[in-house]
Amino acid sequence: MPPSASARPQENTESRVIASALSRGPDGSGTARFLAERERVASRRWTRTTRVPLAELTGWHCAPGAAAFTHESGGFFAVEGLSVHAEGAAVPRWHQPIIHQPEVGILGILAREFDGTLRFLMQLKAEPGNAGGLQLSPTVQATRSNYLGLHRGRPVPYLEHFRNPDPERVLVDVRQSEQGAWFLRKHNRNMVVEATEDVPVLDGFHWLTLGQLEELLFVDDLVNMDTRTVLACLPRCGPPPAGADALAGDAFTAALWRSLDPRQGALHPMRSILSWLTGTRTGTRLTAERVPLTRLPGWERDGERLYHRSGRFFEIVGMRVEAAGREVGGWDQPMLAVAGTGLLALLVTRINGVLHALMHLRPEPGLRDVAELAPTVQCHVDNYDALPRAARPRFLDVVLDADPAGVRFDTRLSDEGGRFDRVGNRHLVIETERLPEPPSHRWMPVHQLGALVDHSGYLNVQARSLLACLHALAAHRPAPTRGGPRP
Amino acid sequence: MPPSASARPQENTESRVIASALSRGPDGSGTARFLAERERVASRRWTRTTRVPLAELTGWHCAPGAAAFTHESGGFFAVEGLSVHAEGAAVPRWHQPIIHQPEVGILGILAREFDGTLRFLMQLKAEPGNAGGLQLSPTVQATRSNYLGLHRGRPVPYLEHFRNPDPERVLVDVRQSEQGAWFLRKHNRNMVVEATEDVPVLDGFHWLTLGQLEELLFVDDLVNMDTRTVLACLPRCGPPPAGADALAGDAFTAALWRSLDPRQGALHPMRSILSWLTGTRTGTRLTAERVPLTRLPGWERDGERLYHRSGRFFEIVGMRVEAAGREVGGWDQPMLAVAGTGLLALLVTRINGVLHALMHLRPEPGLRDVAELAPTVQCHVDNYDALPRAARPRFLDVVLDADPAGVRFDTRLSDEGGRFDRVGNRHLVIETERLPEPPSHRWMPVHQLGALVDHSGYLNVQARSLLACLHALAAHRPAPTRGGPRP
Repeated sequence: MPPSASARPQENTESRVIASALSRGPDGSGTARFLAERERVASRRWTRTTRVPLAELTGWHCAPGAAAFTHESGGFFAVEGLSVHAEGAAVPRWHQPIIHQPEVGILGILAREFDGTLRFLMQLKAEPGNAGGLQLSPTVQATRSNYLGLHRGRPVPYLEHFRNPDPERVLVDVRQSEQGAWFLRKHNRNMVVEATEDVPVLDGFHWLTLGQLEELLFVDDLVNMDTRTVLACLPRCGPPPAGADALAGDAFTAALWRSLDPRQGALHPMRSILSWLTGTRTGTRLTAERVPLTRLPGWERDGERLYHRSGRFFEIVGMRVEAAGREVGGWDQPMLAVAGTGLLALLVTRINGVLHALMHLRPEPGLRDVAELAPTVQCHVDNYDALPRAARPRFLDVVLDADPAGVRFDTRLSDEGGRFDRVGNRHLVIETERLPEPPSHRWMPVHQLGALVDHSGYLNVQARSLLACLHALAAHRPAPTRGGPRP
Repeated sequence: MPPSASARPQENTESRVIASALSRGPDGSGTARFLAERERVASRRWTRTTRVPLAELTGWHCAPGAAAFTHESGGFFAVEGLSVHAEGAAVPRWHQPIIHQPEVGILGILAREFDGTLRFLMQLKAEPGNAGGLQLSPTVQATRSNYLGLHRGRPVPYLEHFRNPDPERVLVDVRQSEQGAWFLRKHNRNMVVEATEDVPVLDGFHWLTLGQLEELLFVDDLVNMDTRTVLACLPRCGPPPAGADALAGDAFTAALWRSLDPRQGALHPMRSILSWLTGTRTGTRLTAERVPLTRLPGWERDGERLYHRSGRFFEIVGMRVEAAGREVGGWDQPMLAVAGTGLLALLVTRINGVLHALMHLRPEPGLRDVAELAPTVQCHVDNYDALPRAARPRFLDVVLDADPAGVRFDTRLSDEGGRFDRVGNRHLVIETERLPEPPSHRWMPVHQLGALVDHSGYLNVQARSLLACLHALAAHRPAPTRGGPRP
């Protein structure tokens, strides 16, 4: 409608995003070159971590008697206690530590068109908790403490593109939650902003097409959590472009492309999905109250660490970090550690030729609004030793017993390395028959997930991570399966 | 897509809603008959109120020394204190009483198709604070205290249609906020559910088409606030049906119909609007902390009432209620009272032939997420005597000086009569030239408001009330103007 419509980047965002997803870069070899570059960069950008007793962390108040673990600046984050009451749930009452970081951070990816194709400025970044060292990160990962220089570091490069962006150049700008089991009401601003001017490329930064980025999603522990959540928010609910037809040679991929197209319909109209969300959020009695760390039944602490008596769930440990190629050369901090690898599994099925994913509407104590859509199964399998049988997740056995031929995606991807020590989840997309829906689950096509992720608080971080994997599957041949599920 | 698609009420909700809005009922005389019926009903359904000192309210703890005004059952609501810090605002710090009612109530309208036209089951209800006595209310207005029988009343009629509705029969189901200046984080579940079976019509209830309901919106203090917010959520963002062409004889109405149609575009793409919301919500430093009523600088209290020393804003008073035709024959309660009538004004303009409304992204201390879209101007004009000049609302003078010929809607409509004593707002829709947007305001077509009101927390209750008025203007000739604005 506006006279200058065609000159505005947002007008055809969805088709430009899909075109970038189908591009392997100018010479088609970007991914291999990038992986070689990563080896080279690793020698000058790294972190080394050593566990130290909590009580000995420099700059932190983590004494055994502390009511919360806090930084002496008052910034960064705190570890506090939470008392949870989930009326009617299999585990109706529990206590746990939780990370409290009330400020809204920015996760920003800068985009720019080169020869008609969108590319994204990614950073090879070493975070202390990263499995595998360098991971592919957004252009900017900055907390308010970062901007304000609370960590005594240098200014965050490229931050100026995200602080007051021209609204017409914004492709994504939405606050999204982080892990509701470990963070208290945390959310970050997920942004993609398009630059039209030349952008200098600093050491460790690289322009990649979405096709290259998504190919790298099939590599274990490479594309970091912050990148995945921002990518998931990129709009691409549209009919496939002409170029996608060749890709959709197999029935699965064809059903996935149809699933991106709102005109292909859905098992449940969006009004029913929204009503299901409203009903669950209204009817679930979940209260979470902050309490001192000294009042957490079941949890033990000493100068060393804070852990659950069962040995399950997670623990808070002390970490001493040495770093190269970052703003600060070294620091101490508490981190959250988990034994083993988590399991995030999305069951998918074709309904009238349109791929649908079985979404779980999952209450979590740290979420701002009771419950968000989660993968079909989201768990650490080992934890169920310590819990009543009724707490065992729905569909876990379907996942564990799945036919290897139905496994479409199977990659271990990391949680954020700034707070979590080598914590990661096996990401699985498994095609299955159409199973009946319990009240907690609904089959939804990808375009409905895309319509919801435009808004805050509908898809949890695990669901967004798997949504990024679904997008990657649309533009790439499924990776060869590596045997059956092995959670 | 599903085989039974055509049998599902939701499939063509938008066109059925518009068809009902264009219907004057089976014999075209429904409105006049309804107003006559109202006179008749008024003799047996009424409330009488007497102001009594707060300290004498039966069942309530409202002593001058109380930290909060509470009911002895622990139910209903409480009046608490709030300490607000709005960094950088014209009034950066203030204290006020606020109503705290943490439970989510149901505002539900039952719909049913008669001879192919949707009709809505409305109730003539007397609330103690209603201006003009009986107002047109949703089928059900129920708090959780109502369901649980805390008020010792009879069961709420028709409630069973809303407690576990068939998702396929749900036309609206979304939680929406109430006044963010007077309620602490309150929201209600706004619902429209379609019945397919016969529904007995109890005394005081009436089936009305949307066209009849919207005609009644032009009558002062008749359609209550709860009805207006639910009606605003009814989906009708579609192209006008053939029957609407005749109505759109004047350029204003034609521009309004185009404004309902997403294909007509918008000044700002939705991504820019969402980014503006995200930026404001992230960047606004607004904190509201609950404090005892005994610690409210500027507020005076005695056994009689709680009021601001300036005589402005609002006061909390005690009310003794006698009622006929309700579940309970009488009770006492505190109420919020305001001197004079508030002003809710929406400036609208035609941009490329599409009507756009100038929305204000307005922070309020009681909202769950910092700021929601509000009318262009939302204020009590008298309050500005007691505030700094910079606090005077943007565009207030444009409204006060508006050309009477541009006034398209001008009706006084009430706030909710269960908590507010004869509080109401003059609702104005004023057509104007295209004024420049300050950072706090954006011109938006009605279809963008419709897309946002499907979700919680985007449009505040005042904006939803005016959205219902805009819908009414599309299907009805503008009422004759009654002279210029007279706030």
